[in-house]
Amino acid sequence: MKITCSKEALQKGVNIVSKAVPQRTTMAILECILIDASKDQIVLMANDTELGIETIIDGEITERGVIALDAKIFSDIVRKLPDDEITISVEENFKTKITCGKIKFDLVGKSGEDFSYIPVIPRNQSLKLSVITLKDVIRQTIFSKADNENNKILTGELFEMKDDMLRVVALDGHRVAMRTINLREMVPEAKRVVIPGKTLSEVSKILPGDDEDVELFFTENHVIFEFEKTTVVSRLIEGEFLSIDQMNLDYTTKIKINRLDLISCVDRASLMANEGDKKPIILEVTDDTLELKISSFIGSMDEKIDIEKEGKDIIIAFNPRFILDALRVIDDEEVTLYMINPKAPCFIRDEESTYLYLILPINFN
Amino acid sequence: MKITCSKEALQKGVNIVSKAVPQRTTMAILECILIDASKDQIVLMANDTELGIETIIDGEITERGVIALDAKIFSDIVRKLPDDEITISVEENFKTKITCGKIKFDLVGKSGEDFSYIPVIPRNQSLKLSVITLKDVIRQTIFSKADNENNKILTGELFEMKDDMLRVVALDGHRVAMRTINLREMVPEAKRVVIPGKTLSEVSKILPGDDEDVELFFTENHVIFEFEKTTVVSRLIEGEFLSIDQMNLDYTTKIKINRLDLISCVDRASLMANEGDKKPIILEVTDDTLELKISSFIGSMDEKIDIEKEGKDIIIAFNPRFILDALRVIDDEEVTLYMINPKAPCFIRDEESTYLYLILPINFN
Repeated sequence: MKITCSKEALQKGVNIVSKAVPQRTTMAILECILIDASKDQIVLMANDTELGIETIIDGEITERGVIALDAKIFSDIVRKLPDDEITISVEENFKTKITCGKIKFDLVGKSGEDFSYIPVIPRNQSLKLSVITLKDVIRQTIFSKADNENNKILTGELFEMKDDMLRVVALDGHRVAMRTINLREMVPEAKRVVIPGKTLSEVSKILPGDDEDVELFFTENHVIFEFEKTTVVSRLIEGEFLSIDQMNLDYTTKIKINRLDLISCVDRASLMANEGDKKPIILEVTDDTLELKISSFIGSMDEKIDIEKEGKDIIIAFNPRFILDALRVIDDEEVTLYMINPKAPCFIRDEESTYLYLILPINFN
Repeated sequence: MKITCSKEALQKGVNIVSKAVPQRTTMAILECILIDASKDQIVLMANDTELGIETIIDGEITERGVIALDAKIFSDIVRKLPDDEITISVEENFKTKITCGKIKFDLVGKSGEDFSYIPVIPRNQSLKLSVITLKDVIRQTIFSKADNENNKILTGELFEMKDDMLRVVALDGHRVAMRTINLREMVPEAKRVVIPGKTLSEVSKILPGDDEDVELFFTENHVIFEFEKTTVVSRLIEGEFLSIDQMNLDYTTKIKINRLDLISCVDRASLMANEGDKKPIILEVTDDTLELKISSFIGSMDEKIDIEKEGKDIIIAFNPRFILDALRVIDDEEVTLYMINPKAPCFIRDEESTYLYLILPINFN
C-alpha cells in the first residue's frame, strides 16, 4: 500500500475514527486504526465491535492495500507532524513508513485480515436532523442515563419516533430527562429504539460544527449515523425501555424562578454536601420566597430567593446534583417547578413539555 | 470577631495564602486559613511550617478577634459567593457565620491558639527584583531541580549573590540549569542560599502580574519575599550546594540550530520513547546536518535538520525530555550546543552564559 494525503485531512480522519477505539481491550487489533486503500478511496476505520466508525479522506493511492496501525501511536505521530504532505507506504511484513519532508517514522503494522469490518447494513427508513438539533438533544438528556451496567437498557437513551415527532428519553431510576422535537417530515412508521449512551456521546464529539444535516438509519439491531464522509454504526440495546407515557402531570404547587439564580444557589449549597454522603438540599416554599437550606457535618447554609408561586406552600428535599444537571441544560431564563407533595416527583418543564425533567425527592426529617 | 470586606478582596487574599496550605497533613490546624483581626488590619495567614504566607486585605473590623477556618471549605464558599459585601462574624465556641446578601453559611472554626504564626524575622540585607525577572528566573531553572527527596538540597535552587550579579542554579545529577542576572544595585555582602523548590513555585504563582518589585530578605535560616500587601516566609535548605564554578566550557563541536525546529523534532522523537523506558535520542552531526534518530520496540524515527557547524562531527545521545525542558525556556530564536565527546556534558548556552544548560549524555551502542 502507498498513499499520500495532507496532514490536515489525515488528522481530521484520525480524530473521527479514534472515537471508536476502545480504552482497554485484550484484542490488540481493536486498538488499531485500519487504513483501507484497497479500492478507489482512502478509508479510515475503527471498530470496538459495539461501535464502528469509518470516514473517507482525500488523498492519492499510488499502490492499493490495507494496513492496521496502533491508534494511539499513529494519531500521536500524525498530530506532531508539520502541516505538509504525508506519505504512508507499507512494505513486506507490514513494515510501515510514514514520511513527511525530512521526517521518517518506521512502524510495524498489523494485517487487516483480523480487523472486524463494520457490517454492511441496508439503509431503509431514514431520519434527517440538523447536526445542531442532534447535538442539543443529546447534551440535554444524556446526563440522566444510568452510569452503571446493572440495568443495561438504562445506559442508553430511548429514541421514539412517531408522526412528525422525535422524543428522546434518558432515565436512571431517580430522574427522567425528556426532550421532544418536531421533525421536518413525517416518519413513515412509528419506532422505538434504545441507542447506547456511549455511542451518542462519541457521535456528539465528531459531528461537524456547522449547520449540516445528519441522517440516521435504523435496522432491527443497529443504528447508522451518516454525515459528510463519515459513517457511524452502532448496535442498539435490546430490551424494553420503561414506558413513560402515563406520567401524571398534576401539581398542587407551581413556582417560577430565575434559572441562573437557582443554579448559583444550589451550587453554593452543594459545598456543604460531601461527595459520597447524600445530603439533600431542602426547599421551603412560602408565599413569594424559596428558602433553600442544607446542613451537614461540614456546616450549614441558608439562602432566600424570590419566586412567583401558585398553589400550596411545600417543604421538599432533593439531591442537589440532580437539580443542577437539569437546570444547566435548559436554555430558558426562567424555569417552572411543579410539585405535589414531599414524596412525589417534581417536574421542571415548559408549558408544552418540549422539555421535561422529573426528579424524585429525598426523604428528610 | 466581626469583619466586613468585598468578595474581591477576600477572594484575592484567600487565593494567595492558600498556596501555603499543605495538601496532606495530620495536623488539622495546618489545613486552616487564619483570619487575624486582632489588631487594626485584617490579616489572612496560612503556614505549613516550612512555608508561611500572610496578606493584608481591605475591609472593616467591627469587632476584633481571630478565627481559623478550614481552607478548602472557606475558599470554596468565598469563590461561589456573588460579587458583594461579605461579613464574617464569630460567636461563642468558634461558630462562624459568613453572610452575603440573602446568603448565610454557618461553619465551626478553630481557635487561633494552635495556629503556628509566621516567625517574626529581622529584615536586613535586601534584594530588589522586578516581579517579571523573578518569575522568569524561576521558570527557566526550576525544572532542573531534583524531584525526589533523597538528596534534600537538590530539591531547592541555589541563589548566589555577589557584587551586582544574581546567579540561580538548579541541578538534579543529570543536568544543570543556570541563569545569571544583573542587579540594579550592588549587594553589600556576597551570599549563597538554597531556597526550597516548592517555595519558589508557589511564590511564582502569587506574584502580581504587573511590573512591580518584589523584595527578598535573607537570614541564617529563612528567606522572606515581600510584595504588595503580602509576605512569604520560607525556611532555607541547609547544607552545601554543589559548587559549579569550575565548569569546563571547552568544546570541539559547536552547532547553531533553530530552536523551534529542534523542539518539534525532539518532541516527535519522544513518541517512540515510552515513559519509563529510557530510550535515548541519538544526534548525529555531519557537516551542515543534524540527523536525529530514535529506535525502540514501538518503532523508529529519523529526521534531518539544517545546522551551522564549527568543529568535529560527533554522534551523541540524550534523554529527549532533558533537551526539551531546556529548549522550551530559552527565548532566543537560535540556540547553540557545545559538545566535546559522547561521554562529556553538552552545553546549551549563549555567548555570555546569561543562560547555561548542561545535559549529561546517555551511553548508547
